[in-house]
Amino acid sequence: MTEATDKAAITEAVLRYCRGVDRLDMDLVRSAYHPGGIDHHTGFSGPIEEYVEWVSTALQRFAGTMHTVGNQLIELRGNRALCETYGTAAHWGPPPDDPRRNFTSGFRYVDLMSRVDGRWAIDERWAIREWTRSDAGRLMAKEGEGPSGSRDREDPLYRARALLTR
Amino acid sequence: MTEATDKAAITEAVLRYCRGVDRLDMDLVRSAYHPGGIDHHTGFSGPIEEYVEWVSTALQRFAGTMHTVGNQLIELRGNRALCETYGTAAHWGPPPDDPRRNFTSGFRYVDLMSRVDGRWAIDERWAIREWTRSDAGRLMAKEGEGPSGSRDREDPLYRARALLTR
Amino acid sequence: MTEATDKAAITEAVLRYCRGVDRLDMDLVRSAYHPGGIDHHTGFSGPIEEYVEWVSTALQRFAGTMHTVGNQLIELRGNRALCETYGTAAHWGPPPDDPRRNFTSGFRYVDLMSRVDGRWAIDERWAIREWTRSDAGRLMAKEGEGPSGSRDREDPLYRARALLTR
Repeated sequence: MTEATDKAAITEAVLRYCRGVDRLDMDLVRSAYHPGGIDHHTGFSGPIEEYVEWVSTALQRFAGTMHTVGNQLIELRGNRALCETYGTAAHWGPPPDDPRRNFTSGFRYVDLMSRVDGRWAIDERWAIREWTRSDAGRLMAKEGEGPSGSRDREDPLYRARALLTR
Repeated sequence: MTEATDKAAITEAVLRYCRGVDRLDMDLVRSAYHPGGIDHHTGFSGPIEEYVEWVSTALQRFAGTMHTVGNQLIELRGNRALCETYGTAAHWGPPPDDPRRNFTSGFRYVDLMSRVDGRWAIDERWAIREWTRSDAGRLMAKEGEGPSGSRDREDPLYRARALLTR
Repeated sequence: MTEATDKAAITEAVLRYCRGVDRLDMDLVRSAYHPGGIDHHTGFSGPIEEYVEWVSTALQRFAGTMHTVGNQLIELRGNRALCETYGTAAHWGPPPDDPRRNFTSGFRYVDLMSRVDGRWAIDERWAIREWTRSDAGRLMAKEGEGPSGSRDREDPLYRARALLTR
């Protein structure tokens, strides 16, 4: 049972990171790492405190991002773990024909994690960029009205949570 | 243990929805919702009973669809829950250069769910369309013979199940 | 509890397959199947021992692949199971405008599995090719320095594991 619980906590940390980046919730991003944790990214390498500044600025270039993850293989070793996560990140924004603002990348997160005071979080991450595909000129408008996302507390996620907890 | 079991049941409801849409099994789609559940979609908003009619017709436009989901963060509150699911939906069909029949969309399902008589299902869903990318003119024929899907009981899934249960 | 443990072992077998193919680790690919297991693929149908030879050669055509999986619905029946897994496979390699070396496919794995001597593995797989999309001319170089993958033990995954276990 401990193994399943540990793995669920590890998975949640990685998913919190994705949600945090996509909703521009930097507290959520930060919560995936231990203080002083290290992130190696394309274009950045250093402690999480600086990473959050860097990624926060980088995200401003886009109208939105979506970090979808799948495969997750976790190896536990007591209070430490190795977790590999596969994913793709969609990025979009004006102008629609700019490949630097409209692209999808494939990545793997390789995370060394540990449990400190009962909390699983990342000590060191290698964000491996596998491929980058331009979506310039391919993105289309929606074909009707419907729920839209936003990068703040107006997102349907937060409004639904308010309904859950009221 | 209850938490893990509840979350597994919630995950299964979302996955049944995806399978149901892709295999055109409307009973399976319906099984993801409670009676009277509400769905907010791009181009539709209303009770599940009407949604099933609407989506069933909409799906006829395509030769096939594939609703692949990843990230799932679930917040439990007794017999109620909030579940966010990330995914992409591929759509294809003739003619191959029609972007309305050949596209991929990125979505998040935000689901308010509850457990009634031991069954977790959706009370209200916001299907957020994040982006839509044309695949017109990019889809290719397979480079050899091999298993193909179908949107009925001829799909390899059902044939394999018959082998499992015989 | 047994059900959750069984399902976790089934999920791991499928994920080991994906990692094995992407890292060119054929022992890992093989570990997903029982000896004599059958694989039905686009362009191949036969026992795993021959499949490993075939796929190993096919993978040489590419500079890299990434098999990302999502939805997984598992039906248990004692020591046997049916598992359907959704996924996409990105393939890339020179020259960048060759659609046979730069494409993404959508697939479903339909796996009949069994537990033998406590080990869950595949007896028969149908790898259904749902769609294939050319990425020719769309892949871009990275916009900065950062972690890169490799198809051998130099990959950051293995280097991080060495840090975990030292």
